[in-house]
Amino acid sequence: MDITRTLARYLVGARYEDLPAAVRHEATRALLNWLGCAIGSSRHETVERALAAVQPFSGPVQAAVMGRSERLDILHAALVNGIGSHVLDFDDTHARAIHPSAPVLPALMAYAEWRPITGKNLIHAFVLGVEAEERVGLSVFPEHYAIGWHITGTAGVFGAAAAVGRLLGLDERQMCWALGTAATQAAGLREMFGTMCKSLHPGRAAQNGLISALLAAKNFTSSEQAIEAPRGFGHVTSTRFDPSVITEGLGQRYEILSNMYKPYACGLVVHAAIDGCIELTREHRLTPDEIERVDLTVSPLVLELTGKRSPRSGLEGKFSVYHAAAVGIIHGAAGEAQFSDEVVRDSRVIALRDRVFASEDGAIGRTEARVSMRLRDGRRLDRHVAHARGTLERPMSDADLEAKFRGLVEGILPERRIGELIAACWSLESLEDAGDIARLASCRES
Amino acid sequence: MDITRTLARYLVGARYEDLPAAVRHEATRALLNWLGCAIGSSRHETVERALAAVQPFSGPVQAAVMGRSERLDILHAALVNGIGSHVLDFDDTHARAIHPSAPVLPALMAYAEWRPITGKNLIHAFVLGVEAEERVGLSVFPEHYAIGWHITGTAGVFGAAAAVGRLLGLDERQMCWALGTAATQAAGLREMFGTMCKSLHPGRAAQNGLISALLAAKNFTSSEQAIEAPRGFGHVTSTRFDPSVITEGLGQRYEILSNMYKPYACGLVVHAAIDGCIELTREHRLTPDEIERVDLTVSPLVLELTGKRSPRSGLEGKFSVYHAAAVGIIHGAAGEAQFSDEVVRDSRVIALRDRVFASEDGAIGRTEARVSMRLRDGRRLDRHVAHARGTLERPMSDADLEAKFRGLVEGILPERRIGELIAACWSLESLEDAGDIARLASCRES
Repeated sequence: MDITRTLARYLVGARYEDLPAAVRHEATRALLNWLGCAIGSSRHETVERALAAVQPFSGPVQAAVMGRSERLDILHAALVNGIGSHVLDFDDTHARAIHPSAPVLPALMAYAEWRPITGKNLIHAFVLGVEAEERVGLSVFPEHYAIGWHITGTAGVFGAAAAVGRLLGLDERQMCWALGTAATQAAGLREMFGTMCKSLHPGRAAQNGLISALLAAKNFTSSEQAIEAPRGFGHVTSTRFDPSVITEGLGQRYEILSNMYKPYACGLVVHAAIDGCIELTREHRLTPDEIERVDLTVSPLVLELTGKRSPRSGLEGKFSVYHAAAVGIIHGAAGEAQFSDEVVRDSRVIALRDRVFASEDGAIGRTEARVSMRLRDGRRLDRHVAHARGTLERPMSDADLEAKFRGLVEGILPERRIGELIAACWSLESLEDAGDIARLASCRES
Repeated sequence: MDITRTLARYLVGARYEDLPAAVRHEATRALLNWLGCAIGSSRHETVERALAAVQPFSGPVQAAVMGRSERLDILHAALVNGIGSHVLDFDDTHARAIHPSAPVLPALMAYAEWRPITGKNLIHAFVLGVEAEERVGLSVFPEHYAIGWHITGTAGVFGAAAAVGRLLGLDERQMCWALGTAATQAAGLREMFGTMCKSLHPGRAAQNGLISALLAAKNFTSSEQAIEAPRGFGHVTSTRFDPSVITEGLGQRYEILSNMYKPYACGLVVHAAIDGCIELTREHRLTPDEIERVDLTVSPLVLELTGKRSPRSGLEGKFSVYHAAAVGIIHGAAGEAQFSDEVVRDSRVIALRDRVFASEDGAIGRTEARVSMRLRDGRRLDRHVAHARGTLERPMSDADLEAKFRGLVEGILPERRIGELIAACWSLESLEDAGDIARLASCRES
């Protein structure tokens, strides 16, 4: 079975005109969401340390670091922006597996500053990149992930190679080489979760995918069956490999339509509880003092992953469903700001957090919750959240995404620029130079 | 078991003074052999294409590309020199697994030009790097390789990280992070054998190991149990993992003492046959015309891997035991020059090659051969080669290594420089600035 070649042929031959409007719009939504994450993390110490390590070796200033004034060569920009994309764990998630944008958009955005491309070309390359990474990833999922591979890193490199390869105009054989060179650099262990290396994975995937395509353009050869060969990516990195997932319905269904965005800066499993808390508080115009007690009924997984009763830092707050519920009520939000050390230690938050209780129910799904509030005046308010906001069943609206973007970038970019960036994303299809987005997203005068 | 930490503690605390003299000398031998391979491949199209792909993104000119005039930032120099180290398949081999120098020395040599270090420090870092890559590699070998991992790439990254981490003066925790960051970038598939990506593997290992150490020096965190954790390198990339191999006898035995060098520019399995042909020809002062027929008795593996009767190119010549025997007799050598397209198509070589016959014998080892020559004057000459030259049982002498080096670099470096480089390698322990070697090995005036 000629899996790598079939995929390469599709990537080389696909036409922008064939993309459904919904696919094109989803690409702009993903871009806006990604930009917010990348800019919003620009002062994160993970980004700072990576940048400090590589800056002495960076080449010509070719591409922006999102939310910062530094400019790097495109390979290092892809690396650092890839790290920044994921470090808040606030980037997009495919409904089944992989954070699709973090490995692909940093490579594309760097490319767009180096060699001007239209917004349409950016959209198309991005959609194709997501297609490649998701299909290759899902062909080995979930066993590959269960073994211990961080699939956003391992599959992501295919996405970046495919996307950049398309922009470079690789022919079919060169595209096979690009995918092969990506395959032989696919890496990233789940053991790294909880360390800075977790974010290194999409950064490396972006950089390695980019270099794979650049090497292929110079006719640097690779296996042309790198995905399906007995000693190729599929068989070597998973106990199960289903190649048909890669080639079935290419150009007919689009993986980017299964893209989900997080409204809250913490694990998906606590989102439904936050939704319920925010909704009840808002609808009944409650102040925290009016609430005597909050009872959450959640999936057992929620308590396993986020059962921290008394978090002491912002990071620990992300693993406390009690904290998440409390900030939902007090702040009406659960963005990065609500998971700061300061907010986690705020006495008002602590007081309410201690009045939140959670019990598990095996019949409740991961993105489902029941919230029950007992008020001091004796009333009881109940809310069943069947699907958390941001899931495919209840997607974030464009306005929601704009609000999330603003929450992430305010204080980093000037107000005027924020509006320009949002407008640029929504009008991406008509942009003559997609590199404008990267320039607007950097902290230089533009 | 604290495997990663124990290894890190050793790497951080080991003392140069404790290295046995044989270990120090072996390091200089490996350096000379590596230099020859890296310089000798400097015009190879694999190197040319990689260089063309990355040069537009290279940073400050910090380090030499061996045998060339280009200078790159240290990360790209490590990559390109790593590719060059392995592309002739003439680099060193540990008696059990891994080409030890190709992933480590390119990183160290680039470092030495960037931050001056003494020859002693270079030797020590190199010995420690080999220790780390071999021990980690052998802890998962052979199953890891059997599955499809190119172990020189996957294990090599630990060697480069350890060696550079030592030079950077990392503390124990940082060294754990460097090893962890290396672990999560370990990659390289055997499917790539026969393509340019095979050489990319040690190049990437050198570059990724180097960046792992640089990141750790900036306190970029990683798992501190990356090798032994359930989702760490050992368990994820192999069906068998023996952690004791990593920690047993650290500082007591040295893996570099199991280093082997190839006298001939082709697979090890045909070396014994070449030895026998060269020895008989030399001892009896034979000319090719005097030889009526040559009969080789070899391991079945030899015919499986190198049974090509009529090779048509230099590369195919490397997979022909008949060609190898013929050039041994005619040229008294089997270096890169003897595997050129020209020599493979030389009528004198073809005529003799057609008079070489090989039969297999299951009782004969991989590095063993029997050679029998029937001369036109009726004599019969026999030679049993129990161990090929270059194996641990019959190592290449220092003079042999010098001759190999000269064969590789003549025509690339000026004659005077060749002598200076050989002298610099043998006096490495007393060099105040090990970067001098890289400067001598480049094609600039120095």
